[in-house]
Amino acid sequence: MTEASKLRLSVEWFGDHIEVIDQTLLPGREELRRIDTVEGVVDAIRRLVVRGAPAIGVCGAFGVVLGLQGTVPSARETLESVAVRIAAARPTAVDLPRAVQRTAAATADADSAEEMIERAEQEALAIQAEGRESCRLIGEYGRRELAGVTRILTHCNTGRLATSGWGTALGVVYAKAAAGEPVEVLASETRPLLQGARLTAWELSSAGIPVTLVTDSMSGAVMASGRVEAVVVGCDRVARNGDTANKIGTYTHAVVAHAHAIPFYVAGPLTTFDLDISSGNEIVIEERPASEVLCYGGRQVAASVPVWNPAFDVTPADLITAFITDRGVLRPPYAESIPRAFENGVRP
Amino acid sequence: MTEASKLRLSVEWFGDHIEVIDQTLLPGREELRRIDTVEGVVDAIRRLVVRGAPAIGVCGAFGVVLGLQGTVPSARETLESVAVRIAAARPTAVDLPRAVQRTAAATADADSAEEMIERAEQEALAIQAEGRESCRLIGEYGRRELAGVTRILTHCNTGRLATSGWGTALGVVYAKAAAGEPVEVLASETRPLLQGARLTAWELSSAGIPVTLVTDSMSGAVMASGRVEAVVVGCDRVARNGDTANKIGTYTHAVVAHAHAIPFYVAGPLTTFDLDISSGNEIVIEERPASEVLCYGGRQVAASVPVWNPAFDVTPADLITAFITDRGVLRPPYAESIPRAFENGVRP
Repeated sequence: MTEASKLRLSVEWFGDHIEVIDQTLLPGREELRRIDTVEGVVDAIRRLVVRGAPAIGVCGAFGVVLGLQGTVPSARETLESVAVRIAAARPTAVDLPRAVQRTAAATADADSAEEMIERAEQEALAIQAEGRESCRLIGEYGRRELAGVTRILTHCNTGRLATSGWGTALGVVYAKAAAGEPVEVLASETRPLLQGARLTAWELSSAGIPVTLVTDSMSGAVMASGRVEAVVVGCDRVARNGDTANKIGTYTHAVVAHAHAIPFYVAGPLTTFDLDISSGNEIVIEERPASEVLCYGGRQVAASVPVWNPAFDVTPADLITAFITDRGVLRPPYAESIPRAFENGVRP
Repeated sequence: MTEASKLRLSVEWFGDHIEVIDQTLLPGREELRRIDTVEGVVDAIRRLVVRGAPAIGVCGAFGVVLGLQGTVPSARETLESVAVRIAAARPTAVDLPRAVQRTAAATADADSAEEMIERAEQEALAIQAEGRESCRLIGEYGRRELAGVTRILTHCNTGRLATSGWGTALGVVYAKAAAGEPVEVLASETRPLLQGARLTAWELSSAGIPVTLVTDSMSGAVMASGRVEAVVVGCDRVARNGDTANKIGTYTHAVVAHAHAIPFYVAGPLTTFDLDISSGNEIVIEERPASEVLCYGGRQVAASVPVWNPAFDVTPADLITAFITDRGVLRPPYAESIPRAFENGVRP
């Protein structure tokens, strides 16, 4: 396989602008997009030019730096409004507001606008570097947890496009491949925006890892047929009790996996866990435009009827076999194992 | 609502040709296609120009008539090959081979090619008329069974486009609406060919029945949210024990409905039941081209990777609350209730 760590990052920082791979154009075109304003950051996150909980966190952090650069010498006065605007671009994943707040907070003791910018930039780069290391650790813990498992079903895209490293759920796959272990992926296409079909299938086949594409509705048939040994997905926000918000369709896969006694893993860094909320009921689920379901490529394919288009669903903790995190594998009861993982010195 | 019975049939017979609504073009264009050869029938069924188990049965029956007309005076010699070619157009639904065989068998005692054609035509018209009456009965039995149920989730298209009448699962919906009872439908889009988004949403909104479109992957989220009181789907082939082949994704909905204790109904005429097979394991599942999953409207949307594209899946009998048939509602244990329904004088 091509070593994922040598590939271009989905979000890169150039001192005065961000460059991202425009994920709305993949796999047809691999195009870079330059972002040099807060408005550009918000727009890119909202339109899913950049997506994936860890990647939008990093993009938001660099967005704070851009906001400060643009407002010298009144950086201190505008910091809060910049942070609020970026953090509100998408509501469900916790990485975005957390990375933005962390970057903003790093400027607290700075004596000048220039020093604020400097500190924010260092913090954003640290978040990016930590994200990369988190992916490496998740991959390694997951590889050990899934020793002997070859056929993995995943949903949406959780690889190098979605993170600062080689990914979360896909990080486990890349780690297995890097260790020379056999691994095959069943990628569910992930309607409406087809991140599985467009991004995961592209990433994995580029890396030489066998991948077969199925529609989301086939999870029952593929699991009943014995084609799946484990399901591994990412996460956008995990509550203190283990309830997990992730891409719409995750919960359906979890119910079906449970019915077939197939282990269901959630992979993600502890930065995606939100101890401030006690259960999935408190997670705000973003509802996106009907056009995402009705249209493809600007052309309407469905009849003109009302649509319900939640971008995420919540998988209750009792359907999750374990969490594969950058601090090890967390097992039930999660109300104990999740807070304990944080107590061991993880940055909140 | 517009009375479904006054609308155009999806398959109509004109003495020397068939006219069908080209379902591959809906909802964008409502175009009729004239079919006057056996090849035309096979092609239309294979390309899903006409689809839905009862509708392809009727189309196949008229195809036998066309075949005989085209081979006068050697009709007797070519009857079998015509029947075999048409029956093999698609493998999963039992209605097609059954309607073809029945039409062919009706010519057995005819004294001339002309009489064979005459008898085949009468038989095909009888199958069509019976199909229409079956839909009416399914609707009525279903309406009574689902008294008090307003919010119904359905999958694929089982309405007037798929049958000779107002439909099977959708027949239940139309019957409720015709009786002035409140009814709302959640239509799952039904990837890869989007029969839910293109056909069901179009049919129901044309009829003035409230319909909301969701992606297939949302079945978990919609059921968990309390938006669904019952699931009603059609069927392509039901085994003697009640195992049911239907459009891919049906099984996933059934597993999820079971996990939420939501009743799961299968609606279909007894012609869709196949007493010759004992369980779902014996049902041949059609696998269709990868392009259906990779492309939309001739344009490739996914990365170029291998695809698994079964057109149907099998829902085991124990996930099915009841069958709504044209001979009443069949309840578990199906190994008893299904054969009993046939013993009461139903044509095999």
